Amino acid sequence: MQEIYLDNSATTKVCEEAAKTAFSLMTETYGNPSSLHKMGFEAERALRLAREQVAKVLSVQPEEIIFTSGGTEADNLALFGAAHARKKRGNRIVSTAIEHPAVLNTLHALEEEGFEVLYLIPDKEGHISPEQVFEAVTPDTILVSMMAVNNEVGTILPIEAAHMAIESAGAPALLHVDAVQAFGKLPISPKHLGIDLLSISAHKIHGPKGVGALYLKKGITIRPHTFGGGQERNLRPGTEAMPLIGAFGTACSVLPSPLVSRKKAQTLSDLLFETLAPIPGVVRNSPSDALPFVCNLSILGIRAETMLHFLSSKNIYVSSGSACSKGKKSPVLSAMKLSSERIDSALRVSFSRYNTEEDVLAFCNAIKEGIRSLQHV
Amino acid sequence: MQEIYLDNSATTKVCEEAAKTAFSLMTETYGNPSSLHKMGFEAERALRLAREQVAKVLSVQPEEIIFTSGGTEADNLALFGAAHARKKRGNRIVSTAIEHPAVLNTLHALEEEGFEVLYLIPDKEGHISPEQVFEAVTPDTILVSMMAVNNEVGTILPIEAAHMAIESAGAPALLHVDAVQAFGKLPISPKHLGIDLLSISAHKIHGPKGVGALYLKKGITIRPHTFGGGQERNLRPGTEAMPLIGAFGTACSVLPSPLVSRKKAQTLSDLLFETLAPIPGVVRNSPSDALPFVCNLSILGIRAETMLHFLSSKNIYVSSGSACSKGKKSPVLSAMKLSSERIDSALRVSFSRYNTEEDVLAFCNAIKEGIRSLQHV
Repeated sequence: MQEIYLDNSATTKVCEEAAKTAFSLMTETYGNPSSLHKMGFEAERALRLAREQVAKVLSVQPEEIIFTSGGTEADNLALFGAAHARKKRGNRIVSTAIEHPAVLNTLHALEEEGFEVLYLIPDKEGHISPEQVFEAVTPDTILVSMMAVNNEVGTILPIEAAHMAIESAGAPALLHVDAVQAFGKLPISPKHLGIDLLSISAHKIHGPKGVGALYLKKGITIRPHTFGGGQERNLRPGTEAMPLIGAFGTACSVLPSPLVSRKKAQTLSDLLFETLAPIPGVVRNSPSDALPFVCNLSILGIRAETMLHFLSSKNIYVSSGSACSKGKKSPVLSAMKLSSERIDSALRVSFSRYNTEEDVLAFCNAIKEGIRSLQHV
Repeated sequence: MQEIYLDNSATTKVCEEAAKTAFSLMTETYGNPSSLHKMGFEAERALRLAREQVAKVLSVQPEEIIFTSGGTEADNLALFGAAHARKKRGNRIVSTAIEHPAVLNTLHALEEEGFEVLYLIPDKEGHISPEQVFEAVTPDTILVSMMAVNNEVGTILPIEAAHMAIESAGAPALLHVDAVQAFGKLPISPKHLGIDLLSISAHKIHGPKGVGALYLKKGITIRPHTFGGGQERNLRPGTEAMPLIGAFGTACSVLPSPLVSRKKAQTLSDLLFETLAPIPGVVRNSPSDALPFVCNLSILGIRAETMLHFLSSKNIYVSSGSACSKGKKSPVLSAMKLSSERIDSALRVSFSRYNTEEDVLAFCNAIKEGIRSLQHV
């Protein structure tokens, strides 16, 4: 039975090119980039290449890329690093209630340290409005952290408004963007959007799990959060995770244009919602202007876990909420104030460039079959 | 020209078995361990297997292993985690002046927070004596952090004395051991040695760069240092670095007995020092009771970088000091109060199970040739 993987916002299959790079950095070019001999220099060259490949996707300078162990570490470094660097200039942080746990839980830790955090609440479709952002950013705000695209419903957040709000308030705030779900799917230019810090992860774009990066705008100073050797400009010490970093670079180098990928994902998303729309009990949770890689829907009357299990038995893989919350009630759908029934039956289908219309139709057929067989149980 | 890699304390070649595991976890079993479907369960099984494989080498329970992005992160988590968890019980931390920068610089950060840290000074051979440790540990000591084996000269530190000193002082101290250089080379049983926290890294034992682990004794509570999803018992969030974690597990599963490896390394170390002893200007910096995987020596009159470059041109790779200090004056040899001349000309040769007597003889011949040609320049 063919496997149909529709859980690409949880993680993706590593593309062959990237996996080969990792293999070669494990068994051939295995030097330590800090070593002062030929093997070290070769490793350093591989590191430099990867940094250029990642930087290129964001149209930034290679020196502005700091490799981390993933999106979570990038978020932690950005938030602790920025808050601690600016704490003499203010105490207020603005964010949203629909951030990833890597942001939310780090902000909770900063609250324990004494920072005051305002979490903007989305509307029923998961939107945060520019007006909300303007109202929230005050002259003593030192940090605004807002994801580019929500991981559970796909809504696009008003990053540009966040930048303008900081400017118009004359706030000393840095702007951090968690772009883990947006990277490679939405054209994001930190320079044009006024972003100071931006988190990305390899494993959402057919790179490996365990590596990510923080874009740190040239000239911006943050405090390190971990300490050790002087790697990554003293901001992220530890011997560089060469196999994964190299693979991340390769994955970036073969990434199609976000516009092309998005168009394809839009076709798949439209097909999915159009096919399922006539079925009673199917409710769409992602708004129509969401980034089409993420399709959130509820099958009223069937618990998400039950449907997941049914789909999994047919080798079709989707998720309930985000993988990270592992069975807990979705914090995003809760913030959107959806009914418990809708939250408990919510499924997230998420596409990558490897998915096809056949995948979507197979999913829709399985959903129809699932509704028939599970509602009769 | 054959490559002779004698810089295994900087990093090692990933063994074929481990590299294959990583490849398969990138391209086949690529699910997210948190996903509630078949692909997720398979990934979770791979994660569990790796945890068992790592735990087995230390004779501890799999639940006591927390995967990190490497030794540096394990050290940071251990030190911040323990100090913050115990700060109400005392303010004093005891460590040594010859720890790795991942420990030293984290301790400096804790000093900035107000903790008082005592750094034990080694003798001229790099030894820390049990008496020094007993004298240092007071009833208000909350943490003792001591490496098992020094990374630059190979001295073995008195871990057992540290445990006894804590007991005899009746201190509320946790015992942290940075075992990055000792793991797989010295039999270390945290249970028998009274160790509460122990840091290890994959890339020193023919696993990949970018993954390590913290052993955390069951029942001991520490504070997390990064925040996000609930992975690794809420102590180290972020999607698990599956390719590297799996490879780490495999590398552990094929690790020979430390006793066998050590015996072989002793033969190589003896051969090296015996061959070079008659040469004027060659001084041994590693004490005779050092762990034989690390051989530190000075070639008086020839700067280490010059000799490194010469050796590298012959495809022989060693290091000057540790890779992590990248050209800076060795803090370990400085703490041992060696002369500047000896420090500036110090080389570190470090073995793994892949090295042979031929490698050592080729190195010794190259050194002789280097002395002839470089001293005449």
